[in-house]
Amino acid sequence: MNWRYATKRMTGQKVPKEKLDNIMEAIRLSASSMGLQPYHVLVIEDAELRKKMSAVAYKQPQITEASHLLLFAVWDSITKQRMDDFFNQVAEVRGVSIDTQKQYREMLEGKLKRETPEETFQWLARQAYIALGTGLSAAALQEVDATPMEGFDNKGMDELLGLKEKGLRSMAILALGYRDAANDKLLGAKKVRRNKEQFFIHMN
Amino acid sequence: MNWRYATKRMTGQKVPKEKLDNIMEAIRLSASSMGLQPYHVLVIEDAELRKKMSAVAYKQPQITEASHLLLFAVWDSITKQRMDDFFNQVAEVRGVSIDTQKQYREMLEGKLKRETPEETFQWLARQAYIALGTGLSAAALQEVDATPMEGFDNKGMDELLGLKEKGLRSMAILALGYRDAANDKLLGAKKVRRNKEQFFIHMN
Repeated sequence: MNWRYATKRMTGQKVPKEKLDNIMEAIRLSASSMGLQPYHVLVIEDAELRKKMSAVAYKQPQITEASHLLLFAVWDSITKQRMDDFFNQVAEVRGVSIDTQKQYREMLEGKLKRETPEETFQWLARQAYIALGTGLSAAALQEVDATPMEGFDNKGMDELLGLKEKGLRSMAILALGYRDAANDKLLGAKKVRRNKEQFFIHMN
Repeated sequence: MNWRYATKRMTGQKVPKEKLDNIMEAIRLSASSMGLQPYHVLVIEDAELRKKMSAVAYKQPQITEASHLLLFAVWDSITKQRMDDFFNQVAEVRGVSIDTQKQYREMLEGKLKRETPEETFQWLARQAYIALGTGLSAAALQEVDATPMEGFDNKGMDELLGLKEKGLRSMAILALGYRDAANDKLLGAKKVRRNKEQFFIHMN
């Protein structure tokens, strides 16, 4: 975690398939509330598409200089279909009857009834950020540079990638690649973090 | 990531200090938007306090059976003081004048002006979930069981821990400890995740 930093300039060098697969697998196995995994991850390598994405991402250089972009796109809502698919999969994988899922489903339905759609969406979006943290850790372990990016026009990105039709909303991008040591001013910059005494509150 | 699971029952066995320190350090070094780290982590070991927390957390057993609880408490807003402290620290650590931070500060102030307080809070809360993901990964690497928990009465928890006075709101708990193999029904359960073909969308 000391090795990594928010790489601003990348060389375009490709991340080897095995390392990319490891990072993606860590993300796929990431924890989420109830195990819902209420998001998809778009895997983007194509240069032409990235040029278009750059235009809705304030031309930040990582968009085109990264090896791959992983875009976290969150469910815009929990539809009946999504709920059915989820509970059916749990029952199937664990070899139990769908009735065993009844209590969990009622718990989830109760939660959805109590919340506004926006509250629910924000809860779902937070789950994607657990996976973003998992991906950042996995990349550092693989010595692959990784930059989390929120600075883009979400609506423009959704339109460009056809996310609305898929019932998804773009939330964050994880740019994967290799630092351009010659051109990245941030590489030499000291990591700034609040110190332990300020950051942790020991309740004793 | 395959080894870990959301441990429901723990033995109470203590996580060695070195492992706990490693997990906490990974969390402290975690990425956040602009590097703001807009949250604190409460470190809770005391049995009496955990009994009280259990009462506002639907008596979930991990609260009292874990070795330690790490509670992520998010800034309820970005006050002028918090902004001053942050930009002053960046300038100090990097040995640059505070003027070099002007552009970033204006960017942040502009964002805050465009957003409702609740939108800002949700953005800050998502940053804590990157750290939650980092902590989950770090714990798995240390072979320490870790359960992310959202199921508690946030207002009751804030009151119990005096968070409102600190300008913080409780968001999630990471329970750290060791699985109780004899009593945890979930230990044998297969991990359920959407398969690669469903979870990833390759944009080519």
